[in-house]
Amino acid sequence: MIRIAIDAMGGDHAPHEIVAGAVWAAQEYGVALELVGKQDRIEQELDRISNEGFYSDGGTGGRQHRIKVDTGRLDIKITHANEIIEMGEAPGQAIRKKKNSSVVLAVNAVATGSSDAVVAAGSTGAAMASSLFGLGRIAGIDRPAISITLPTIKRPIVVIDAGANSNCTPEMLYQFAVMGSTFSKNVLGIDNPRVGVLNIGEEAGKGNELAQATYKLLDEQGGKLNFVGNIEGKEIFLSVCDVVICDGFVGNVALKVTEGTSSMLFRMLKQEFKSDFTGKVIGLLAKPFMKRIYKKINYEEFGGALLLGVKGVTIVAHGRSKSYAIKNAVRVAKEAVQTGVNEKIAKFYEE
Amino acid sequence: MIRIAIDAMGGDHAPHEIVAGAVWAAQEYGVALELVGKQDRIEQELDRISNEGFYSDGGTGGRQHRIKVDTGRLDIKITHANEIIEMGEAPGQAIRKKKNSSVVLAVNAVATGSSDAVVAAGSTGAAMASSLFGLGRIAGIDRPAISITLPTIKRPIVVIDAGANSNCTPEMLYQFAVMGSTFSKNVLGIDNPRVGVLNIGEEAGKGNELAQATYKLLDEQGGKLNFVGNIEGKEIFLSVCDVVICDGFVGNVALKVTEGTSSMLFRMLKQEFKSDFTGKVIGLLAKPFMKRIYKKINYEEFGGALLLGVKGVTIVAHGRSKSYAIKNAVRVAKEAVQTGVNEKIAKFYEE
Repeated sequence: MIRIAIDAMGGDHAPHEIVAGAVWAAQEYGVALELVGKQDRIEQELDRISNEGFYSDGGTGGRQHRIKVDTGRLDIKITHANEIIEMGEAPGQAIRKKKNSSVVLAVNAVATGSSDAVVAAGSTGAAMASSLFGLGRIAGIDRPAISITLPTIKRPIVVIDAGANSNCTPEMLYQFAVMGSTFSKNVLGIDNPRVGVLNIGEEAGKGNELAQATYKLLDEQGGKLNFVGNIEGKEIFLSVCDVVICDGFVGNVALKVTEGTSSMLFRMLKQEFKSDFTGKVIGLLAKPFMKRIYKKINYEEFGGALLLGVKGVTIVAHGRSKSYAIKNAVRVAKEAVQTGVNEKIAKFYEE
Repeated sequence: MIRIAIDAMGGDHAPHEIVAGAVWAAQEYGVALELVGKQDRIEQELDRISNEGFYSDGGTGGRQHRIKVDTGRLDIKITHANEIIEMGEAPGQAIRKKKNSSVVLAVNAVATGSSDAVVAAGSTGAAMASSLFGLGRIAGIDRPAISITLPTIKRPIVVIDAGANSNCTPEMLYQFAVMGSTFSKNVLGIDNPRVGVLNIGEEAGKGNELAQATYKLLDEQGGKLNFVGNIEGKEIFLSVCDVVICDGFVGNVALKVTEGTSSMLFRMLKQEFKSDFTGKVIGLLAKPFMKRIYKKINYEEFGGALLLGVKGVTIVAHGRSKSYAIKNAVRVAKEAVQTGVNEKIAKFYEE
C-alpha cells in the first residue's frame, strides 16, 4: 500500500483541514498515511473526525456537507514534530534551524523510505528546500521546478516553472521542458506532448534574452522533445501546446493572474445578477451552471503542484488549501508514485 | 479643435474598420481627423460610410447595428501614404526603409504639428519605433513604455510596461513608475496614485533580481512617488494599488493571460448553458448580464494603450481593433492631449 506523508501543521487551515483532507483521501483512494506534526493535536483531530466528522463544499464553492470518516479503520502512522516553519521565514535558514519541524520530518519520511510521497501546504520555499536537501536532485537536473496543471478548453496544460526559480538560464528551461514532458506523458497520459516557450509573440526573435536563447536551444537541440515554438499568454488556454516552459517569476505571475481574473469575473457576474429582481432570479437559475465552471477551473480540483527534479515525490499544496484540495493533492501524490514520474525523468538523462 | 492622425492602413481590419471608427469618434467627440494611407482607399471608405454606413456591435460582442456618419460635415484631412508596414517586419529596419509608410507619416503628422496625436493599430513595434524616432524621448526617460488600463473590482489600474521593453533595468522601472503615476493622476483622475512592483510575493526579498532591485530603489529613493511595495498577480484586480510596474515581457504575459482567462471562462459558460434545454433557456435569460460584464472587461472599451515617454501622444490600438475600439482609442488620444500627460511627465523631471 502506498503511504503518503502529510505535513499536518502547514497551511492556513492546519491542522484541521489538512488532517480531514488526508483521511478523506485515505478512505477514497486506499492509501496509508503518515501524519507529521504535533501528536496531541493530530490525535485530537482524528478523534473529532471519527466522532463528529468535518465539513466540506467538495470544491463547489457552495454549501458545505458533513463528512464522517472512521479513522480507526485506516492505516495511519503519526510522527511527532514539535516545530513549525512559519510562512515568513527564510526557507534555507529555517530548515537548518528547525530540524524537527513538521515539513522537514515529513520530507525525511520519504527520504528514509517510511513513506512514498509527501504533501505540504505550508511555506512553498520550505517544502522545496527540505526536498532539495532531504531527497537530492535527479542527475541531469540543476534546479527542481514546480509544475502546475491548468484547465483549458480541451485538455489540461502543464506550466513549469510555476514559482520555484525566479532567475533562470536557458539550460534550466530546457530541463523544465524535459520534466514537464515526462509529467504530461506519464501522469496526464498525453502522447508526445507539445512543448512551447511562453513568450510575447510567435516569431523566433521575440521576447527577452532568456526566451530568445531558450527558443534557440530547443530549436537546435530539442532532440526527443516535441518543441512547437513560442506561445503567447492568451494561448495557454487554447490547447495549442501541452507543456509551457518559463522562468518561475513569469510562471508564478501568469498563474496568479489567471486566479485573479477568474475570481474577478465571478464576482462581477454575481454583482451584476444582484442588480435587480429579475437578475436575482436569473442568477439563482444560472447558479448550477456557474458552479460547474467554478469546479472546472478551481485550483482545489488539481490538488497542488508537483515539485519535479528531486529524487522523490513532493506535492506543494496551496496555502489556502481546505480538506477537498488536500484530498486531491494526495490523489496526485499517489498517481505520481504509481507512474514513477521522477524515475522516468532520471531515465531521460540515462538514455 | 484637436486633430488626431490615424494610420488608416494598420490593423487586421484596415482600412474599413479603422476609418469607420475614426469618423465615428470625430462625430461623437468633436475632433478633427488626419487619415493617413492610400488616398483612393480612404476616399472610397468615406463615401461608403456616408452613403451606406457601417456596422458595429458597440463593444457588446452581440448584434451589430448600422451606423451612418455624414463624413462631409466633419473636418477630415487625408495624407497619402503609398507604403504599409506589415506585422512580421523588423520595426527598426522597416521604418527606415519605408519612409512613406502610413504609420511613419501618421507619426510625422504629430511631429510637424499638423496633428495633435496619433492612433495606430498595426505593428506595435513599428508604431513605437516611428514615435521614438519621429517624436523623440522626454528628457529623463531612457525608454518609452506602453501603459495599459485594466478594469478591476473598483477603479481602473495602470500596468506599465505592457510590452515595449522585454529587458529592463531597475532605473527603467522607476521611470515607468513616474510615467504611470502621472497618467493615473492626470488622465484617470486618481489622487496620489499608489505604485506597486509586480512580484511573486509581498516581502521585500521576493522575486527575481529586477524586482528586488526595483523594490530597493523605490523604497530608498521613491521621493514624490507613492510606493506601496510588491503586489502579486492575483491582486492586480483587487484595487490594492493604482499603478503596477514590471518589465514589458512580464507585463505583456500578464495582459494576455488576463485576456485568455476571460475568453476561456466566457466560452466555458456558453458551453455549459448549451448542455441541455433548461440551460439554453437560462443562458438566454442570463445573456444581458453576461454582456454587461463582457463590456466591462472588453479591451475595446479602453481604446488602446498609450506610449508614454515620447514627446507627443501615440496610442497603440489592438491589432484586432474594429470601429468601436478605434473610436475609444481616439477618445483616449483626445484626453491625453487635453490633460497634457507628456508635458507633465517632462515637468516631473524638471522640478
